[in-house]
Parts: sequence; C-alpha cells; structure tokens
Amino acid sequence: MATLAPVGSDDAGPEVAAVYADIRAPRGTKFVNAFSRVLANDPALLAATWRRLKTVMVEGRAGGLDPLTNEMVDLAVSVANACPCCVHSHTAPARAKGMTAEQHAHLLAVLAMASQTDALATALGIAPDPEFEAG
Amino acid sequence: MATLAPVGSDDAGPEVAAVYADIRAPRGTKFVNAFSRVLANDPALLAATWRRLKTVMVEGRAGGLDPLTNEMVDLAVSVANACPCCVHSHTAPARAKGMTAEQHAHLLAVLAMASQTDALATALGIAPDPEFEAG
Amino acid sequence: MATLAPVGSDDAGPEVAAVYADIRAPRGTKFVNAFSRVLANDPALLAATWRRLKTVMVEGRAGGLDPLTNEMVDLAVSVANACPCCVHSHTAPARAKGMTAEQHAHLLAVLAMASQTDALATALGIAPDPEFEAG
Amino acid sequence: MATLAPVGSDDAGPEVAAVYADIRAPRGTKFVNAFSRVLANDPALLAATWRRLKTVMVEGRAGGLDPLTNEMVDLAVSVANACPCCVHSHTAPARAKGMTAEQHAHLLAVLAMASQTDALATALGIAPDPEFEAG
Amino acid sequence: MATLAPVGSDDAGPEVAAVYADIRAPRGTKFVNAFSRVLANDPALLAATWRRLKTVMVEGRAGGLDPLTNEMVDLAVSVANACPCCVHSHTAPARAKGMTAEQHAHLLAVLAMASQTDALATALGIAPDPEFEAG
Amino acid sequence: MATLAPVGSDDAGPEVAAVYADIRAPRGTKFVNAFSRVLANDPALLAATWRRLKTVMVEGRAGGLDPLTNEMVDLAVSVANACPCCVHSHTAPARAKGMTAEQHAHLLAVLAMASQTDALATALGIAPDPEFEAG
Repeated sequence: MATLAPVGSDDAGPEVAAVYADIRAPRGTKFVNAFSRVLANDPALLAATWRRLKTVMVEGRAGGLDPLTNEMVDLAVSVANACPCCVHSHTAPARAKGMTAEQHAHLLAVLAMASQTDALATALGIAPDPEFEAG
Repeated sequence: MATLAPVGSDDAGPEVAAVYADIRAPRGTKFVNAFSRVLANDPALLAATWRRLKTVMVEGRAGGLDPLTNEMVDLAVSVANACPCCVHSHTAPARAKGMTAEQHAHLLAVLAMASQTDALATALGIAPDPEFEAG
Repeated sequence: MATLAPVGSDDAGPEVAAVYADIRAPRGTKFVNAFSRVLANDPALLAATWRRLKTVMVEGRAGGLDPLTNEMVDLAVSVANACPCCVHSHTAPARAKGMTAEQHAHLLAVLAMASQTDALATALGIAPDPEFEAG
Repeated sequence: MATLAPVGSDDAGPEVAAVYADIRAPRGTKFVNAFSRVLANDPALLAATWRRLKTVMVEGRAGGLDPLTNEMVDLAVSVANACPCCVHSHTAPARAKGMTAEQHAHLLAVLAMASQTDALATALGIAPDPEFEAG
Repeated sequence: MATLAPVGSDDAGPEVAAVYADIRAPRGTKFVNAFSRVLANDPALLAATWRRLKTVMVEGRAGGLDPLTNEMVDLAVSVANACPCCVHSHTAPARAKGMTAEQHAHLLAVLAMASQTDALATALGIAPDPEFEAG
Repeated sequence: MATLAPVGSDDAGPEVAAVYADIRAPRGTKFVNAFSRVLANDPALLAATWRRLKTVMVEGRAGGLDPLTNEMVDLAVSVANACPCCVHSHTAPARAKGMTAEQHAHLLAVLAMASQTDALATALGIAPDPEFEAG
C-alpha cells in the first residue's frame, strides 16, 4: 500500500542497518516500524530523520518535556494532521511509556476541546488578544 | 475584524455575565478574552463551550493530565489547525501555568518533528503497523 | 499584503472587465472583492474561476442546494481550511442572502460539533462502519 | 484497527447503556456506530459528546438549521478535515434524512469550489475585504 | 468503500463515455481511475472537473510548468491535505512522467522541510516580513 | 505579534550569529527574516533547522530538484497548511530564483486544481487504485 517497497533487514546497506540497529536497541526485538523501512529507500533521509527524532524525542532536553509528554503532543499533532498511521505510531508508544487509560481519556477530551474552540475562533474571525502577545 | 461584535460587560445578560464572572474569578482582573466576548452573541453556545472548557481544561480529571500539559496539547492542536488567535491564547496561559523557556523550546522542536514525520508518513502512504494496533 | 497587486478597474483588459461587470451586476455597486482583483493578474484564471463559481454558487442546479446553503457550506469548508479572508467572504454574503442570527449561531454550534467528533474519530482510528457504505 | 477496543452492549455499564439506548431509539435497530462504541471506553466522554451531539444535531434550535443541512455542513467539515470515517458517518445519515442525488451532487460541486477558492485566496495572501467585516 | 458506486463503461451515458475515452487516449489501455468512475455519477461534475484538469494539468500553459512539476506540486498538496488516494494518484503518474528515485527522494525531503518550518512559523505567530510583500 | 521577541544581531550569541551570517551570505544584505530571528530564542533549534534547510533547499541533491522547484513545492505545502507568513516567505524567494509571472499563474491553477480534486476524492471516500500502488 505504500508508494515504495519497505527495505528488509537483509537488503539494508550500512547506513540503513545502523539506523535499524539504533531503533531496535531500546526494544530488544527485531521490530522496525514500516515508516522507517519505507523511508530507508533513501538512506540519507532515513538517517537525517532518525538523528533528529532521537535528539528531540528520545534524548530530549535538560529542563524540557518528558518522553510521555512528547508522545502525547505528537499524537495531538497527528490527529490534527489526519494521519492514521501516525495516530497508531504515537498511541502505542505513549502506552509503552506509561500513559494510563485515564491520561488517554483526558487527552482525547482535550483534543476534542481544542478542535472545537479552534473552529469557533476561526469561524468568528477572532484576532489574537493584545493581552496574550509577547511583551 | 471578527464576524460579530464583542459583547461588552454592560451589555451582557445574566447567562453571559455569569460566564464572564467565572472566567475572571481565577485571574482577579476585568479581562475577558475576545473569543468569549464574541461567542457571547449566542449566550447558550458561550455557556455550553465554557462549561465543557472548565470541565476539561480547568477542573481536569483524577489521574488525568495536569493543566500545563493541557495547554501545551491545545497549543499543538492549534498550530496544526493554523489558528493564530488560538496559538496566542494557549502560549500565554501555558506560561502563566509555569511553562519555562526550555519547555517551550522543546515543545517547538517536538511540533516540528511531528509535522515532518506526519508529512513523510502520508507522502509514502504508510499503513498503521499491526504491532501498534489495539489488542 | 497580497502576493500580487490588485488590478484596478481602469487597468482591466476586456476579459477582466467582463468578469468585473458580471460580479457587479447583482449588487448594483462598483465593489469588486480583493480576491477577484488580485486573481485578475491572470485573466484566464479569473475567468475560469468566475465561470465555475457562477455555475455552482449563483445559478445552482435544479433540485440542488439553495444559495444560502451554498454559502454556509462554503463557510464551513473555509473554517476547516483556516482561511480568514474566506470566512469573511462567506459570512457577509450568507447574511446578505438571509442568514439570520439564529441560523448563524446554529451553524457555529454545528461547526464546533463536527470539529470535535472529527478529532475524536481520527484520534481513535475509527474505520468507516460497513453499515454506512454505499450499497 | 481502532486504538481502543469497542465496548459491546453486554459490557456496557449503566451510563454507556443509556447512551446506546438513546442512539438506537430513533432507528429502532440494535445498531450503534463504531465511533460511539470505541468512545465508550470513557463513559463520561461518550456521555458528554452524545449530550452535545443530541442538542446540536438532533434537537436543533428554534429558527436554526434543519437536520439535513446539519448533516451536509458536518460532511463539508469532515471532508476538509480529511476524516474518511466521518465522511461515511455523515453521507449515509444525510441520505436517510432525505438528501437526494441532485443535492449530493450539488454539495460535491460546492465543496470542490470552496476548496479551490480557499487555496487561491491563501496562495495570494488576500486579506479580508473591509466591506465584509462586521459593522 | 466509496460513498457512491463507480460507473462502469457499459453504464456510461454519452457525456461520461466521452470523458472515459479522453482519459484512456494517452494511455492506450481500458483503465479509468476510481476517482473518475465514482465522480461519473454526476456527468456534469465529471465533465467540468475533467475539462479543467485537462486544461491545467495536461495541456498546461505557454511558459508555465512542465507536466512532471505539475504532478509533484499536486502530490505536495495531497500530502498536506492528507488524502491517501490522491498521494497514490500523483506518485504513480509522476513516475510515468519521468520522476526518478532521486527526484522523489528530494521531493520527500522538501515536503518534510516545508511541513516543519510551516509548523514553527505558525507556532511562533510570525507575521509576513514586509521585505517579502508585493511592491 | 510573535509569541517570542526577535533576537537582534547585537544580542546574538556565537551560534546564532553564525547562522545569521550564513543566511546573509548569498544575499549580501543585512536582512535576516523574522522566522529565523524569532526561532533564535533557542539557538540549538535555529541551528538544527537552518542546517537541514541548507542541506535540502540550498545545496539540494545530485539528480534532485532545482532550487526554484523546491520553492514552488514549499509554497504549495504552505498554502495547504494555511500559513500566510510561509506563503510570502516562498513566493518572494521563488521570484528571486526566476519564477516568471506565467509560472506563478500556472502554479496557482495547479494548486486550485489539486485542492478541488483532493476534496472530491475525500468526499467520495475513494480508495487508492491498485494500479497506482508500488509493485
């Protein structure tokens, strides 16, 4: 169904194999997600994307967001971007990082709330309040 | 610039006045945001929207997300929905709820990451991994 | 603010002048909206867009939708597409075609509803119900 | 395929069972759509969503929009939000509420028109016409 | 899965048959895509859409874009609009018009770049630079 | 209007100053766009974004897309993402890289075409044609 065939582990050149190994390391399984396997048709794009993903989502930032919040924010963006593959690719990892059923339920309620207030603000042509702008 | 004129405090009927009072309570100022003032042209819609907003974003849920995470998720959705008013309406409150410069910077990096991986997944036509689906 | 300067009535060639005249006819004023004036930099694109607009939105279709419903649907799409210019360009004409304050308020409530249920359906990865598919 | 398993009628607690009964009432069948069954994992979210849906889409508003127009507006939003499940979930009910083939065809033409003029207005950076703003 | 059944070649009236023939001509096969077959339920909408598609995408414009660039731009829009059918419907024809693996890979990188800078610009509430506006 | 104040050249630390210098180099002026100046509040995010931008959009790729096509694709994505700042930030550079009025006009026509066919495909629930999928 993808527009390019996935690159199997046996067909991976050294740059792709290194990324696959890095993806597998924390999980301790052979699993590499379809996104990475299809992106691997361009080893440079896979490597650049993975490097950034690792920096932002895995290693994080001193004083920044924790890994679970990262996944929930990414899920929120994926919902608004209407990407079904991405919704699954962040819901399951969010659970693996400790998202409880209560947190998931609350996240859904926040997403629904944000979507409706965004629609209302746009439908009414509301300009940003001066009180909310940077000093 | 809005498609309806804002409802001033002196023109507010009892249903609208009650919402305005509720919005002002935690801040202790006269400020009511433009979104609420314009929405107030339909008192029933303002009241229903505010009631739900208060339940989801202010009161929250036992074991759910904290108020700062709510604002950051709402900001993420507003970015993906391309709503400038909403971006300001969640950035300023997120700061008021304690979002540090480091958290804001990390959030921006996560939003950029999510947007690019969503685009790649959609451009490649990736289907959800069976491993990520609900059991 | 536009990426091309608007074409004034005095600078309009015959193809553009004909469209401007057609736009002005039902209003009986000199007003031509900014969208058409900027699009007029390419007379062929203005003419093709206007021709289709007139067919679909003005002349309509036997047994089809009435002009007010057309405007409200167009407003709904413009909200979801986050186009502020378009929101104004359909709210004012909807009023001119008879949209009452009650209809506008109800439309806003439907837009808010649709936006939140769309977000929830996408966030949950819901597939279309077989019961809803074409026979 | 959903990120949560649907809640069957036999597993529904009292709050969920009441919503299921309310959904079934006008149809007179056992059918409850997948959206509601999956949302039912959080009985409070299902109940709040359904309550609002019933108020806005079913009961409507004096002088507001009729049920068929509601469905067509919701379909328009769902198209712009790129939600396949939602497209089906509003096309079938629109037909059940009397949408004819001519109305459906006209709606499609309006959606196509709105989408292209929105894209052009955004691509050209058009600001709202002062003539279209609220007085 | 579509909301209307596709119109088979044997069921096509003269207006639809003429479009089907026009679509088939350059390919020399019996293939007509699902989009056209389903749209054919409204012969007028199919004919108007096809006529415009042929003008813009096939015949092009003196001094305009070449057919491969057209397909790549259309693919870019389809990704941002989150339309899986459209992604496939422009990737395959782009290849048929000569898109190499290197061009496809570069296009993906540009799409990822554009998506992340768009998100950052919106998240930061950046106004257009006066230096970039039309003179 | 931005959610963070822009970083002036005199306030830039070494990492930011290096990026500003790199942005200015090909233009030979003091101009640095607002996007970069605001992003500079997080020197690491500015540097990572600029590095990737330079690789993808400036240096390009052997056998890949030319710089003008990059800008036009980026403009297409920005239109679909409804980002006014981004529309200006790619239209002006596209002109600087040689986009003629004819190419701009054709690009607008392609964007309008893509937007309407995407809407129709989504509204009709069309699945990808098997003929268009990767072999």
